[in-house]
Amino acid sequence: MSNAYLVGAGPGDPRLLTVAAVEAIQIADVILCDRLVSKEIIALAKPHCHVVYVGKHPGEQDIVQKQIFDYFADYADGNDIVVRLKGGDPYVFGRGSEEYIVLKQLGYDVTVIPGISSAIGVPALAGIPVTARGVATSFAVVTGHCCDDSKVLWYKYVHIDTLVILMGVSERAVIAEELIAAGRDPFEPIAFVENGSTATQRVIRSTLGAVRDGLLEVSAPAVFVIGAVTRIYEELESGIDASSRHPVAAISISTARSEGAKTLVAEADITLCELARSADSAA
Amino acid sequence: MSNAYLVGAGPGDPRLLTVAAVEAIQIADVILCDRLVSKEIIALAKPHCHVVYVGKHPGEQDIVQKQIFDYFADYADGNDIVVRLKGGDPYVFGRGSEEYIVLKQLGYDVTVIPGISSAIGVPALAGIPVTARGVATSFAVVTGHCCDDSKVLWYKYVHIDTLVILMGVSERAVIAEELIAAGRDPFEPIAFVENGSTATQRVIRSTLGAVRDGLLEVSAPAVFVIGAVTRIYEELESGIDASSRHPVAAISISTARSEGAKTLVAEADITLCELARSADSAA
Repeated sequence: MSNAYLVGAGPGDPRLLTVAAVEAIQIADVILCDRLVSKEIIALAKPHCHVVYVGKHPGEQDIVQKQIFDYFADYADGNDIVVRLKGGDPYVFGRGSEEYIVLKQLGYDVTVIPGISSAIGVPALAGIPVTARGVATSFAVVTGHCCDDSKVLWYKYVHIDTLVILMGVSERAVIAEELIAAGRDPFEPIAFVENGSTATQRVIRSTLGAVRDGLLEVSAPAVFVIGAVTRIYEELESGIDASSRHPVAAISISTARSEGAKTLVAEADITLCELARSADSAA
Repeated sequence: MSNAYLVGAGPGDPRLLTVAAVEAIQIADVILCDRLVSKEIIALAKPHCHVVYVGKHPGEQDIVQKQIFDYFADYADGNDIVVRLKGGDPYVFGRGSEEYIVLKQLGYDVTVIPGISSAIGVPALAGIPVTARGVATSFAVVTGHCCDDSKVLWYKYVHIDTLVILMGVSERAVIAEELIAAGRDPFEPIAFVENGSTATQRVIRSTLGAVRDGLLEVSAPAVFVIGAVTRIYEELESGIDASSRHPVAAISISTARSEGAKTLVAEADITLCELARSADSAA
């Protein structure tokens, strides 16, 4: 039986891979890889691993999805270990469950390895907790546009404390307009986290009304967070030391004027391989 | 400046730790650790690391939270590296944002390391994708009881495709009753995943009405999932080989009759240390 692993690569930083994901990447003979998965992550694969980028640009989703299924079929009767490496978590949007079903139907023995979802991890690294006692006792994660072009019914999310929208940059004004029309406050605070967990991370904070009015410049990929949690660390702002050793923490209370943030990777003194070595010597 | 790491330990399996979390545990001088964090994870700490279990049993949350803050204060002026290790993700319930604020106020340099949230990872390992095209284009994560004893307003979640409830076992009948009263279908499929990702994982599948009527025996900790995604792999059931090498995949289509599931850990041929060694030799 052929082996396949459906693996979440997390938001981008290789140190946010799980141990199980690193292991799967290291044993893979073939990696079918999303566009947003970083080069540093692919560098963990063994030298002769066949890496295929199957990223979906807007408008070509169905063609590329068919190609992914064709690759699954091509390797189904072989001895190659196939890793399907997806950004974030494999089951948070991105058609992971369809891929699981196709792999099983092709006779693969499939192992699912969860990843750090950008919906939770990207806000966290930007200083936005998706829940906070007395502020947000729930959060919802919604895709900004459905794969099948059906309309997202934004009124459903009017009462949710924290709303996290993935793939919502291009539709942001419409999303904000419909949420406000359904009853959300135009003065409710929001944040976009562009390029979360990478060296070009940028946090933009404003209000839902400003998004509706088209006042914010935002580039994809960005996670769109709506709710009071986006301002929860504001009171700490005055106490922040600009020379802080951990820019990831510093950006947590940044304003729209922030220019960027180094990542955990950029600042790390210790590489993945050094980590592995220290784990080994500790054994 | 003292260093603190607010770290997510994931759902239990040590191989679902992130690389950054392993690193933080390995450099820690002090670990303040939730009750649900496994011994295998604590075993990664260095020999003289001071490990304090600060788990909260029901009814003692406020006392224990105060103790955690006291520990933070005790170590604030020292050279010890403090790791606050929390089950799942540090910002999905569990008062992580309060702990971040206290650490910053005490002058710590704080790094937040996201973890695999049980809300997404536990269902995934039990064969339940929280989203699926055409079935669920959103999910919400809600706590079954608020820390501050305020009432959860279940009607807010009536329109959400997939509802994931953490810490909802004891209140499950009331939750189901209020969701049905607000308009959810009593025949809607549900699942509880007990002891997710551990050797005693068990998946119980039924309907929301059966939960309301008190028909299901469920033990905490369990993740309560409501929605059609809990049945999405049912069609694959007939094709499953009981001798499958990967029980984690097999349980994905199990019924209420399932007796349990081995975990990724239990079945793994490769330990964390072996992984580290292979990463090292690949370097």
